[in-house]
Amino acid sequence: MIKSLKISEKGYGALMIKLINELYPICRSITGNGVRNTLKIVNDIIPLTVSEIPSGTKAFDWEVPKEWNINEAYIKDLQGNEIINFKKLNLHVLNYSAAIEGKIPAEELKKHIHTLPDRPDWVPYRTSYYQENWGFCMSHNQFKTLKDDTYEIKIDSTLENGSLTYGEYYIKGETTEEVLISTHICHPSLCNDNLSGISIATYLAHLLSQNRPRYSYRFLFIPGTIGSIVWLSRNEKQTKRIRHGLVITLLGDTSDFTYKRSRRGNAIIDQAVEHYFNSGKVKGRLINFYPYGYDERQYCSPGFNLPVGSLTRNQHGEFPEYHTSADNLNFVHSDKLEESLQAILDILYIIENNNTYINLNPKCEPLLGKRGLYDKIGGGNESKLTQMAALWVLNQSDGSQSLLDIAKRSNTEFRIVREAAEALVECNLLKTTADDKS
Amino acid sequence: MIKSLKISEKGYGALMIKLINELYPICRSITGNGVRNTLKIVNDIIPLTVSEIPSGTKAFDWEVPKEWNINEAYIKDLQGNEIINFKKLNLHVLNYSAAIEGKIPAEELKKHIHTLPDRPDWVPYRTSYYQENWGFCMSHNQFKTLKDDTYEIKIDSTLENGSLTYGEYYIKGETTEEVLISTHICHPSLCNDNLSGISIATYLAHLLSQNRPRYSYRFLFIPGTIGSIVWLSRNEKQTKRIRHGLVITLLGDTSDFTYKRSRRGNAIIDQAVEHYFNSGKVKGRLINFYPYGYDERQYCSPGFNLPVGSLTRNQHGEFPEYHTSADNLNFVHSDKLEESLQAILDILYIIENNNTYINLNPKCEPLLGKRGLYDKIGGGNESKLTQMAALWVLNQSDGSQSLLDIAKRSNTEFRIVREAAEALVECNLLKTTADDKS
Amino acid sequence: MIKSLKISEKGYGALMIKLINELYPICRSITGNGVRNTLKIVNDIIPLTVSEIPSGTKAFDWEVPKEWNINEAYIKDLQGNEIINFKKLNLHVLNYSAAIEGKIPAEELKKHIHTLPDRPDWVPYRTSYYQENWGFCMSHNQFKTLKDDTYEIKIDSTLENGSLTYGEYYIKGETTEEVLISTHICHPSLCNDNLSGISIATYLAHLLSQNRPRYSYRFLFIPGTIGSIVWLSRNEKQTKRIRHGLVITLLGDTSDFTYKRSRRGNAIIDQAVEHYFNSGKVKGRLINFYPYGYDERQYCSPGFNLPVGSLTRNQHGEFPEYHTSADNLNFVHSDKLEESLQAILDILYIIENNNTYINLNPKCEPLLGKRGLYDKIGGGNESKLTQMAALWVLNQSDGSQSLLDIAKRSNTEFRIVREAAEALVECNLLKTTADDKS
Repeated sequence: MIKSLKISEKGYGALMIKLINELYPICRSITGNGVRNTLKIVNDIIPLTVSEIPSGTKAFDWEVPKEWNINEAYIKDLQGNEIINFKKLNLHVLNYSAAIEGKIPAEELKKHIHTLPDRPDWVPYRTSYYQENWGFCMSHNQFKTLKDDTYEIKIDSTLENGSLTYGEYYIKGETTEEVLISTHICHPSLCNDNLSGISIATYLAHLLSQNRPRYSYRFLFIPGTIGSIVWLSRNEKQTKRIRHGLVITLLGDTSDFTYKRSRRGNAIIDQAVEHYFNSGKVKGRLINFYPYGYDERQYCSPGFNLPVGSLTRNQHGEFPEYHTSADNLNFVHSDKLEESLQAILDILYIIENNNTYINLNPKCEPLLGKRGLYDKIGGGNESKLTQMAALWVLNQSDGSQSLLDIAKRSNTEFRIVREAAEALVECNLLKTTADDKS
Repeated sequence: MIKSLKISEKGYGALMIKLINELYPICRSITGNGVRNTLKIVNDIIPLTVSEIPSGTKAFDWEVPKEWNINEAYIKDLQGNEIINFKKLNLHVLNYSAAIEGKIPAEELKKHIHTLPDRPDWVPYRTSYYQENWGFCMSHNQFKTLKDDTYEIKIDSTLENGSLTYGEYYIKGETTEEVLISTHICHPSLCNDNLSGISIATYLAHLLSQNRPRYSYRFLFIPGTIGSIVWLSRNEKQTKRIRHGLVITLLGDTSDFTYKRSRRGNAIIDQAVEHYFNSGKVKGRLINFYPYGYDERQYCSPGFNLPVGSLTRNQHGEFPEYHTSADNLNFVHSDKLEESLQAILDILYIIENNNTYINLNPKCEPLLGKRGLYDKIGGGNESKLTQMAALWVLNQSDGSQSLLDIAKRSNTEFRIVREAAEALVECNLLKTTADDKS
Repeated sequence: MIKSLKISEKGYGALMIKLINELYPICRSITGNGVRNTLKIVNDIIPLTVSEIPSGTKAFDWEVPKEWNINEAYIKDLQGNEIINFKKLNLHVLNYSAAIEGKIPAEELKKHIHTLPDRPDWVPYRTSYYQENWGFCMSHNQFKTLKDDTYEIKIDSTLENGSLTYGEYYIKGETTEEVLISTHICHPSLCNDNLSGISIATYLAHLLSQNRPRYSYRFLFIPGTIGSIVWLSRNEKQTKRIRHGLVITLLGDTSDFTYKRSRRGNAIIDQAVEHYFNSGKVKGRLINFYPYGYDERQYCSPGFNLPVGSLTRNQHGEFPEYHTSADNLNFVHSDKLEESLQAILDILYIIENNNTYINLNPKCEPLLGKRGLYDKIGGGNESKLTQMAALWVLNQSDGSQSLLDIAKRSNTEFRIVREAAEALVECNLLKTTADDKS
């Protein structure tokens, strides 16, 4: 069982930034070598199990697409001056773009260039996974300089039978019941979306692996949508073991947290995050499930309906840098990544420690003093709070109320309630229920 | 099944005003020829089944009263100058007044004259159905001119064994399950209360009869209270088929809508109207059931407890013109009647189209693009909304959530949700439940 | 069954003040002659059953402590001038103080003196029941005058095997189902806490004993915490009969009422008080149960979970006079005591009269006029309210809704609803359910 992990002094923020720096230049997509190289780097920190699923493999209503890879891409004028080059910024190529090469009239080329007129310095990120197309992305200011009649262009990409790649990391806990942590790995040079998710998932796994948690933990590093669909199609039985889950990304910027509830709306993970936000440790807002967003859409489809929520700071589409070149290395921050990692640990602390107890002296209050309980629950400013928490735990522990229920009802931080319960167990005033409801 | 009916361009407002003009002069009461003549005029538009229930017939705790009819009534001074005459305004006579004739001291007469001192130009509407009495109503200003010692009065009315008259109109739908639309027909020259109800019910019936609705529709044109009690006493078994119902009146003035919930409080009709008001198409408020008002009192008595709500604009007693001569032809408006008729059609659209579906591809999302679904759900500004609605319908359709439930949860207009569901059915991604819960 | 009792004109306020005056000088504690003498005085008004439970008797996790008695106590200077004397104010001695006698250095003495620096004129009330100790309490101003090096002190107390004393008063009602009224009796010269509780409980018992109530009433006059624990341990089976209960104290000051809900949170007593406060007769706030406070902590421990709430004005610790010499005879008021007594009677009126009925004419409304019901439910301003209440009672009485439910739903004062129900019963329109749910 995980006790509270404090990570603030261990330099995890710097480690996560380092990982993001390493991953940033790689051109990822939903398939291809970008994903493989990304998983190799993560593998240096936590040993991943990597799966390769061949193109054409069926996954429910979908099938694994052809694999996309790219070597180079540019636009030059006829004098050979480079206008844009994929090597400088991989967003310059439409993700999953078909190959093309040759001289092309400017008029025709411009139909295939994506810009952001409202943010004229930024390059947009665009994809065309399931409809074959070719294209470039550039800043609108640069676009306006295209005065020539003809340009020379090249996109040296391949779209061939290959495979879809994803990584898994499993930590065996006290039980085979699982907590799922899922992050997508399909975005190219974008930092908040999705490198913040990859780096936090990696170091969260690293931290948890040093403990023996109560639950087993399964980390998924998967391409968005098709990755979770493929994983679910190959692990349908496995999903029955998932008791709690989080889809994580967009966790490195400076905005407050957002938790999107699971489809169930009142799963333990939903309650835990709500209680955590209410405790005031971090600023966060709660929003109800809706069938759009990241891979929670698949985990929460009605045929699975898993208790999986999504933790981000601002949501997709809510900040101007979203899916643009401005979501770069300057947009994510060491301290914010660390704060996000700590928040997830704090939430998992609740999940890990949420037992249901039975008061062994349910008729009237026990005499706490004679058992030295006041010493056991410590001194200082917190002791009154913990004594009150002990009374709450005794009063509510009739087998129907978990510690999280008690923390919510008494409006007391979960950790205090948990510590009170531990002291009461030591005094033989409390025992866990055989059939734990948590 | 009824598809959305738009009535704004067909001149229904003018038709309803025409009907109100025709009905206005008739002296209606809870029995008598006024009611019969009213139903004859309605019968020219929709073929009514008219019932005549003899005086003395038992109906639960009540019995059908004697039939009241009136030929003439006036007050004259001894010089033969008419002070008031029933022929000019039938409100001048206390409704159900006993007959009286002769010279009478002013002092005695004044005890039988009803006025509105606060609205000195208006003539009140007063009744005395179940306690024999005689009386006149006049404006307070006119009342103050009564300076003579003696007046000559005449009320040539009859209260004799006869019958109570009501009309029914039935539209056969796909099922024998019924929607009840009830309006009272017992008020004399009053327009908002109750001619607006009669005219809207008539043209609603006219419109629906041109379709093949899902539900069968039963329209009741009945005298208030005693009429619904008599109908219920004679159709007790029939009421088991009623799935939804509305009592309508007070729908021609310029105020916002009021919906009074059924006694159940959370019937489908209650939810449908709440969702409709929330959609912003009209301004409306919702109030909880209370055991006063119109015939919903009887439909919602505990022995029936039917899912019948009441739709009005302002409620009875909330506007000064209520039950006075000021509730006249100027007080109701063509456009407001039409807006009310459209609102009822919009509400019935929800009722008619509220199915429960099963997602046939419940594990992960289906690939909508490959099925041409994005084309099926149309373009323009609404298409994004409809795509999102399609995702909601897929996500929620586990057999426990009706389209209305989904519209409420997703805060999406019901029509959009319905159209998304239809597109999904066409793609074989969705089917209705065998045991439809709607 | 208790009908509304009006006590305002019978001088109960003066009687309660008289009783408080008589009890004020007595030095009470959780055991000893102070308690016995208190119960003897109460016994002059209502005949108590007094129990003596020997020291050492086990009561769940607790045992009855040794009995404490005190004869005299003082601090004198070496010239024999009295600094403080227990006879002048019994708060001057730490309650349950061990005996001590002799000359003592001022420095040592001061470690055993309790004061209130923030309220320098007031003497605090302090206890040390379960940890042997000795001590004095005095005003901080007087404390500052202690300039000598040595003082002569004496506490002539005994802590010996004896017994714990409590009183019970039982009123036999129509059923053996019980209402529990509990007040603590262990505080020395403090008026609001707890003499207001003793005096109100005494005269409430006196008033109820003159009636034949529906419920049987059990009054407990017990030392706080240990008293309720001892009583519960000896009456475990008995508690099954308790249907409603109130712990009362702090009811003589000028603040608004506070009702602390039972652990159940939605017991009938909780609903009754909420409805009563909403009626506007008194100003009161509702707070949820928490496992601290007075004897409701024990009654609401999970092994009992009795439907017992707590009625006070301000709560313990919320007013500066709490547990100080300022909670004296000037702090409680005849009219406030009387208002509190009336409030409890009003609440008990709801409990006593909360039946569930069946409408015997459930199909449509009955004709109220022909049964003279409008006469039965009286005239004046209230008659419209009562007629409306009659319609509510008829509409809701399908056997699932108690009168309290109906009063809440209709937002009508309970008494009006009850009177309407009685009138309807007289007309044979209503009967109580065989298996009354109230």
